[in-house]
Amino acid sequence: MTDKTFDELQQRLTDFAAARGWEPFHTPKNLAAALSVEAGELLEIFQWLTPEQAATVMADPDRAHRVRDEVADVLAYLLQFCTAVGVDPAAALAAKIERNEIRFPI
Amino acid sequence: MTDKTFDELQQRLTDFAAARGWEPFHTPKNLAAALSVEAGELLEIFQWLTPEQAATVMADPDRAHRVRDEVADVLAYLLQFCTAVGVDPAAALAAKIERNEIRFPI
Amino acid sequence: MTDKTFDELQQRLTDFAAARGWEPFHTPKNLAAALSVEAGELLEIFQWLTPEQAATVMADPDRAHRVRDEVADVLAYLLQFCTAVGVDPAAALAAKIERNEIRFPI
Amino acid sequence: MTDKTFDELQQRLTDFAAARGWEPFHTPKNLAAALSVEAGELLEIFQWLTPEQAATVMADPDRAHRVRDEVADVLAYLLQFCTAVGVDPAAALAAKIERNEIRFPI
Repeated sequence: MTDKTFDELQQRLTDFAAARGWEPFHTPKNLAAALSVEAGELLEIFQWLTPEQAATVMADPDRAHRVRDEVADVLAYLLQFCTAVGVDPAAALAAKIERNEIRFPI
Repeated sequence: MTDKTFDELQQRLTDFAAARGWEPFHTPKNLAAALSVEAGELLEIFQWLTPEQAATVMADPDRAHRVRDEVADVLAYLLQFCTAVGVDPAAALAAKIERNEIRFPI
Repeated sequence: MTDKTFDELQQRLTDFAAARGWEPFHTPKNLAAALSVEAGELLEIFQWLTPEQAATVMADPDRAHRVRDEVADVLAYLLQFCTAVGVDPAAALAAKIERNEIRFPI
Repeated sequence: MTDKTFDELQQRLTDFAAARGWEPFHTPKNLAAALSVEAGELLEIFQWLTPEQAATVMADPDRAHRVRDEVADVLAYLLQFCTAVGVDPAAALAAKIERNEIRFPI
């Protein structure tokens, strides 16, 4: 199993962009905008679906492909944003879960 | 180092929601909406900044905290969405990078 | 000049949807999602542009058409949302401007 | 009845921003980002609601106020964006409805 960790995927995305000279576009502001745009494209798949239809979205091969494709885009821009600002996404989430465990006690 | 992989974080988020009875809210459609909302909150930090100001956003401790907090929220909803629809986010991204290597040759 | 007021445009959109049997999809939640998705599509036009390039976006006929098209989509879903929840958009904005005149004194 | 037309509201927003020296921030790119952020805040009200709860959102005075407030913000940034790029929002929507009448015949 390869490329399953945040660090590996971030490195691959950095190499991909560098090989194509795309770094000048990958500013924090542009990447935050692109992340928001891609999250909108993921939501678009669901916008007219009833909750019942949305629950079985992966049963349709075309929609399932589109969902995986948009998940990949959202994750890509999130990781590239994190690289651009020097944030460790997994550490940020672990810290947030710890804060939420105090904020929302069981 | 703990909680650094997608699987571990997804499991922690699942346990967190289950312990609070939040699963009924965590439908694919709701999570896609929440992901988009949080991506908007991350973008909000940058909306009035010049590219130069945006490039040094982490030099301000308050903004840096807010950036890490919103990154955590985006990642949390992305991982919870993936759990809800049964998508492996790291595999989806690795597959997308491979398609893009063909689509955008060096 | 026709169709220049909010009321006229809202009525035309209502008639358009009714004639096609689309009302069941036009719930407040779905329309709020669609509005957000279309706002993302408008932002997409600008995501990789420098501020200078963005300032002259209308000089390119294709981009100019796309901008007008996305403005129309955002406005359409905003007006349909307002119809669905019974909000008068112009009155809501006038009231907000009055609150902001107090909140941000000159 | 005052401020009920697009032109009047656009002029009021322009005057409001000019009186506070906010024009330098109101670039097309920034306004497109702000519009998307505010559309997300409107969606946030609905993100965990069932379709049934969403249908009665205006029965709750606090939520109703929040809905009107976010509608105002979305409309404000849409109109300011249109001013910045020189697009007539009502004409853009009228033209789109005409195209859609051909694209989606009854």
